[in-house]
Amino acid sequence: MKIGIVGGTGDIGEGMVLRLSQRHSVIVGSREPEKAEEVCRTCEGLLDERGLTCSLAGEANQKAVQDGEVVILAIPFRFLAPTLQELQGFEGKTVISPVNPLQKSTFFYYAPPPEGSAAQLARRLLPADTKVVAAFNNIAANRWKDLDHPLEYSVAVCSDDGEAKKVVMDLTRTVPNLEPLDGGPLATASMVESITPLLLNLGKFNSMKDVGVRFR
Amino acid sequence: MKIGIVGGTGDIGEGMVLRLSQRHSVIVGSREPEKAEEVCRTCEGLLDERGLTCSLAGEANQKAVQDGEVVILAIPFRFLAPTLQELQGFEGKTVISPVNPLQKSTFFYYAPPPEGSAAQLARRLLPADTKVVAAFNNIAANRWKDLDHPLEYSVAVCSDDGEAKKVVMDLTRTVPNLEPLDGGPLATASMVESITPLLLNLGKFNSMKDVGVRFR
Repeated sequence: MKIGIVGGTGDIGEGMVLRLSQRHSVIVGSREPEKAEEVCRTCEGLLDERGLTCSLAGEANQKAVQDGEVVILAIPFRFLAPTLQELQGFEGKTVISPVNPLQKSTFFYYAPPPEGSAAQLARRLLPADTKVVAAFNNIAANRWKDLDHPLEYSVAVCSDDGEAKKVVMDLTRTVPNLEPLDGGPLATASMVESITPLLLNLGKFNSMKDVGVRFR
Repeated sequence: MKIGIVGGTGDIGEGMVLRLSQRHSVIVGSREPEKAEEVCRTCEGLLDERGLTCSLAGEANQKAVQDGEVVILAIPFRFLAPTLQELQGFEGKTVISPVNPLQKSTFFYYAPPPEGSAAQLARRLLPADTKVVAAFNNIAANRWKDLDHPLEYSVAVCSDDGEAKKVVMDLTRTVPNLEPLDGGPLATASMVESITPLLLNLGKFNSMKDVGVRFR
């Protein structure tokens, strides 16, 4: 499968590139294509050291959207609206939002937009026939990057499009030990996104690192 | 420790009675004291079959508040405000809210009161020196009741009172395999409560039963 990662040079993006490029053709997007190529070389090096092969290309974000069958928006919440307004060609695509709108005071808290969640904001800004899926919201960047350990987490997947949901759940299964679960329609994404600031608090208040979640 | 359970004859309440009365002195509260006594006899019977002893008394809710050092509000959200307005004697007590405000359409969703969470509503209605703690929000009634299996879950504990939080985390550790984690101040309780409708959706959409959560 061809996966375009918008923001593929960010913290989460780079970790996803490392995991997903072992089994899929990944187009790493960035506002600076040279930086995307640099990330590709770094990832190829890290995977090669482990005797792993990958399929990678570094491009501009716009090209990652064009070439990806599935597009992942690996960007911070504050860049979500401007990025979606700037890019084109989302028609008919499956777009994954792992975006979590959160704020920090003495603790982290969930701060959703008026639409109810980042995923629903993406839904409003994208073309009507784009299939928006919330997924991968609760996995820390460092865990994605840590190739010494499999990702022993659950991934709640929310979408109004049953077919796109299945595609993303199948994609999730290609990452060893990740467990996809049907979270319901996109309107439930806020309950998934809001777990992330809680996980950050659990890390902070219990001296734990990169906490994730398993439903069982 | 003396634990008063308001609503101890409800679904969650009865499960908590079964688990907690093995190690603590539990006062089972109900609007109908006879029903509370009936639950005590049922629980004593179930524990006795397993060769387990317990300490139990069936009482009115008001007596459960009076006699409990720690009071658990094992009631549905819609009864939270009326129950707290009806009962007295919470001064100085540690009060645990496992209450989750949720609604159901074709899926379950989080429907908090204007205060932000059930725990914060309890905070507003209770005396200033009552120590309010959100805990045990994400464990299904059937899991509490199923004595054949230990509770392999995490319990996020939120409170503005550090001492009360410690008391509740220690209490949590007395239930085999439960893992208490400091969730932060009471203002973070909404992020814990809102996991429960998500768990109900995961159950519904994945044909799973009584889903819980482990942070790791």
